[in-house]
Amino acid sequence: MTGRTLHLNLFVYPGGHHEAAWRYHASAPERVLDLSYYVELARAAEAARFDAVFLADGPSLADDIAYATRFRLEPLTLLSALAASTERIGLVGTASTTYSEPYNLARQLAGLDHVSRGRAGWNIVTTGAPGAAHNFGLDAHPTHADRYARADEFLDVVTALWDSWEDDAVVGDRTTGQYADTSRIHRIDHVGPSFSVRGPLNTPRTPQGRPVYVQAGTSEDGRAFAARWADAVFAAHQSFDEAQAYYADVRRRAAAEGRDPDHVLVLPGISPYLGSTEAEAKALQRELDELTQPAYSIDLLHRLVGVLVTEAELDEPFPLERVADRGDEAESSRFRLVRDLAERERLTSRQLLHRLAGARGHLLVAGTPEQVADLVETWFRRGAADGFNIMPPYLTGGFTDFAEQVVPILQARGLFRREYTGTTLREHYGLPRPASQFAARRLSASR
Amino acid sequence: MTGRTLHLNLFVYPGGHHEAAWRYHASAPERVLDLSYYVELARAAEAARFDAVFLADGPSLADDIAYATRFRLEPLTLLSALAASTERIGLVGTASTTYSEPYNLARQLAGLDHVSRGRAGWNIVTTGAPGAAHNFGLDAHPTHADRYARADEFLDVVTALWDSWEDDAVVGDRTTGQYADTSRIHRIDHVGPSFSVRGPLNTPRTPQGRPVYVQAGTSEDGRAFAARWADAVFAAHQSFDEAQAYYADVRRRAAAEGRDPDHVLVLPGISPYLGSTEAEAKALQRELDELTQPAYSIDLLHRLVGVLVTEAELDEPFPLERVADRGDEAESSRFRLVRDLAERERLTSRQLLHRLAGARGHLLVAGTPEQVADLVETWFRRGAADGFNIMPPYLTGGFTDFAEQVVPILQARGLFRREYTGTTLREHYGLPRPASQFAARRLSASR
Ligand SMILES: Cc1cc2nc3c(=O)[nH]c(=O)nc-3n(C[C@H](O)[C@H](O)[C@H](O)COP(=O)(O)O)c2cc1C
Ligand SMILES: Cc1cc2nc3c(=O)[nH]c(=O)nc-3n(C[C@H](O)[C@H](O)[C@H](O)COP(=O)(O)O)c2cc1C
Repeated sequence: MTGRTLHLNLFVYPGGHHEAAWRYHASAPERVLDLSYYVELARAAEAARFDAVFLADGPSLADDIAYATRFRLEPLTLLSALAASTERIGLVGTASTTYSEPYNLARQLAGLDHVSRGRAGWNIVTTGAPGAAHNFGLDAHPTHADRYARADEFLDVVTALWDSWEDDAVVGDRTTGQYADTSRIHRIDHVGPSFSVRGPLNTPRTPQGRPVYVQAGTSEDGRAFAARWADAVFAAHQSFDEAQAYYADVRRRAAAEGRDPDHVLVLPGISPYLGSTEAEAKALQRELDELTQPAYSIDLLHRLVGVLVTEAELDEPFPLERVADRGDEAESSRFRLVRDLAERERLTSRQLLHRLAGARGHLLVAGTPEQVADLVETWFRRGAADGFNIMPPYLTGGFTDFAEQVVPILQARGLFRREYTGTTLREHYGLPRPASQFAARRLSASR
Repeated sequence: MTGRTLHLNLFVYPGGHHEAAWRYHASAPERVLDLSYYVELARAAEAARFDAVFLADGPSLADDIAYATRFRLEPLTLLSALAASTERIGLVGTASTTYSEPYNLARQLAGLDHVSRGRAGWNIVTTGAPGAAHNFGLDAHPTHADRYARADEFLDVVTALWDSWEDDAVVGDRTTGQYADTSRIHRIDHVGPSFSVRGPLNTPRTPQGRPVYVQAGTSEDGRAFAARWADAVFAAHQSFDEAQAYYADVRRRAAAEGRDPDHVLVLPGISPYLGSTEAEAKALQRELDELTQPAYSIDLLHRLVGVLVTEAELDEPFPLERVADRGDEAESSRFRLVRDLAERERLTSRQLLHRLAGARGHLLVAGTPEQVADLVETWFRRGAADGFNIMPPYLTGGFTDFAEQVVPILQARGLFRREYTGTTLREHYGLPRPASQFAARRLSASR
C-alpha cells in the first residue's frame, strides 16, 4: 500500500451508539461494566488493524440514565487495562481541560503512554454538559470562550510537562551512580491566568513524547484551537458538502499556523447499519429506532437546542421558530448541526429525534458492505475525510459485522492496511514524533 | 487454616526499596519503565497468594533523581494495567487528598475497582513532599493540620460518591426500557469548607462498594484519621515494642470510634535481606549499603530532620543537637522515627544513613528464611502486626527469594493461605462489604 492510508477508530460507547442499543436483542447490556467486554472489542478492532479505540467522557451523570446506558467508566483507567490486553492498537481517551488539574492529567496520560508503549491519545474537550460544574465546586459552567481560553493555557502547561524530560535524561550508569542527568530535566515555571505550575513532570519522557492530541470542537474557537494543537480532529457531519468544507477549513487553518496540513487528520464519525441488502440494513435501523423512548429523545433535543416538544407534537414539523437563543453556546457546533439538519431536511420532530437517536448527530449510513465502503472511499478520495470514527449502532455485533464485511473491501481496494507497519499510535496515524521544546532550546543555545 | 490469617502486600518501588538497588548487579533498572516488569512482579506476588501489590506516590519530582530511580509512574493507570494482567491479587494505589479533586479521584478508583472486579485499594495520603504545592498553583504546602482537615472532608465526599448508586440501581429491563432506577441514584449535595460536590457519581456502584481504605499516618492527626476511616494501616517501626504499642493504640482508637478493631488491619513495612546463612544475608545488605552515595543520603537526612551533615562528619556521632525545629511538621512520624532511632542507638551519621538507605525508616531484617519467618510469626502472634508490607531491597530477585523461601515456611506453619478463598481485596483482608449510606437511609426512612 503506497500513498495516503485511510485511518479508522472504533468509538466505543457502552451499549452501542444508538440510544436504544441496550434494548436490542443482540446487544449485551449485562456486560457493559465488565472489562472482558471492552477487551473483546479492542482485540476485535486490533485484529481488523484499526488505528485506535476511542472513549468519550464527561465528569457528570446524564439525567437520561433512566432510559439508557449513559453512565461513564473513567477512560484512562479503562484504557490502561486495555493497554495490557492488546499489543498494537491506539488508545484514545477523553479528558476535560475545564475539570482537570494539568499536573495530574499529564501524569495519567504519561502513565497510559508508558504502559501501552506509545499508544496513548487524548481527546481534548472543554466539556459540554454544564452540570459538571456542580461536581467541582463551581456555581456555573464557565462560558464557551473562558473554557477555550483555559484549554489553550492547559495545553501550554501539559505540553511543557511532557517535554520537561528530554529523551536522554535517564542515564542509568551503575558505575558512576548517576541515574539521571538533571541538566536534561527542566522546570517549566509556567505562570498564567489559570495555572501556575513549576514542574518538571515526575515521569521520564514517554515513548511518543506526548500523547496524540485529538480534538472535536467545530465552533470558531474550537477550530482555532484544533489548528494550533490537534494531531487529529473528530467531526460530526450530516452531508458530504459540509464535511468537504470542514476538511478544507481545518487544513487551511493548520497551514496558517505554520503546520503541515497532512499532520492534522480529519476523522468524521459514521454510524454504519449493515445488511446483505440495503432493505435489510434499513430494517435494522428501523428496528433500533422503534426501541427509542420519546421521553429520552425529547430530553436530548431539549438539551441540544432548547426546544421542549410534547409527545402530541412529535409528528408535526419540528418547530424551528422555537429554537432558543443559547447565548454564547449558540457557537456550539452540535447546536448548529441540529438546527441546520431540521431546517435543510424539513423533518418532523420524530424524524429529527430518530436522526439523533442513531448517533447524536453523526452520520448514519444504512446499506450493504459495498455501499458503506463506497461512501468511505468517496469521502476519503474526494477531500472530505482522512478516515473515520466508526460508531457501531449496537455492540458487539454492530462492530464485528463492520470488521468482517467492510474492512476486507477497504483492504482489497488498497485503502486500508492489512498489517500494522508501526507500533505507536503516532506511527499508525503517520505523524512525526515531536522533539522536546527544552531539548530544542538547549541545542540552539549551545550553537 | 482457621483463625487469624496473616496478610502480605508486595510494596513495589521501581528498582527496589534500597536507595542503591538500581546499581546492584542483579537488579533491572533498564526495565523500570516497562509494564512487563510490573506484570512479572504482580504475577509472582499472586502466585505466592499475596493479598495485594502496593504502589506509593507523590505529585512532584524528588531532587535525588540524579542518584536513584526516584521518578513516579502514576499508580492508578499502572494498577489498571496490572488488573488486566492478574486475576486475584489486590491493587493498592496511593493518591493524595491534598492535590486531587474528589470527583475525579472517585471516578478513577471506581474505574480500577470495576476493571479489577473488586480488587482496588486506596492508600490515602496528604502528601509529604512540600514541593508538590508548586505544581498545583500554591505558594506553599498546606500545614499538617490543614491537610488532615481537608482529608477528612475529602473522605466524606468520596465515600458519599461511591455510595451514591445503590447496589440495585441498574435495572436494565429491556422490555420496559428502564435502564436505571433513579430513585436509587442519589445526589450527595456536599457543601463544606474545601469542597462543594453535588453528585451523583457517574458510574454504577463498584464490586467492593468502595475501594479498601489504607492509610499510613502515625502522627496524632494521622492516627485519629485512621481510626475513623482506615480498613488497613501501614506503619514504619524500628522495634517490636514500638510496633506493639502502635498496634494496641490503633485498635483502641478504632473501638472508641465504635468500629470493630478486627476491621482495621495493621501492616508494618519490613525489608527482608535473605541468605542461606545469616552471614550471607548480612553480606547482601552490606553490598547494597556500599553502593549508596553520600550526597543522596545526606540530602535525604536533611529533608527528614533538617540536619545537613558534611561528608567529613559522616563517621562521627549523628549531631542530635542540630535537629531543627520543624514547626507543625514536628508532628510528622517519619521525623520522630529518625530522631528516636539516632537517639536510642547512638548511631554515627553514616550508620544512620545506612539504616535509612535500606527502606527510608522501615524495619530491615537480614537473616535466613527461617529467621525472617520467625520475626513475622512473633510480630503476628504477639500483637504487633496483622501482616506486613514486604519491601524487597532490590527487584525482582529480592522478592522472588521471599516468595520462594519464606512464604512456604509461613504456609507450613499455618500462618498464611495456600489458596485464595475470596476474589476481592476486601475478602482477602477479611473485611465486610460496606452498605451504601443512602440505601441504609432509604430503608430506615421507609420503616
Ligand atoms: C466524535 C466526537 C466526540 C466527542 N466526545 C466528547 C466527549 O467525550 N466529551 C465532551 O464533553 N464533548 C465531546 N464532544 C464534543 C466536542 O468536544 C465539542 O464540545 C463539541 O463538538 C462542540 O464544539 P465546540 O465546543 O467547538 O462548539 C465530541 C464531539 C465529537 C464530534
Ligand atoms: C508504608 C508507607 C507508605 C507511604 N507511602 C506514602 C506515599 O506514597 N506518599 C506519601 O505522600 N506519603 C506516604 N507515606 C507517608 C504517610 O502517608 C504519612 O504522611 C507519614 O507517615 C507521616 O505521617 P503523618 O502525616 O501522620 O505525620 C507512607 C508511609 C508509610 C508508612
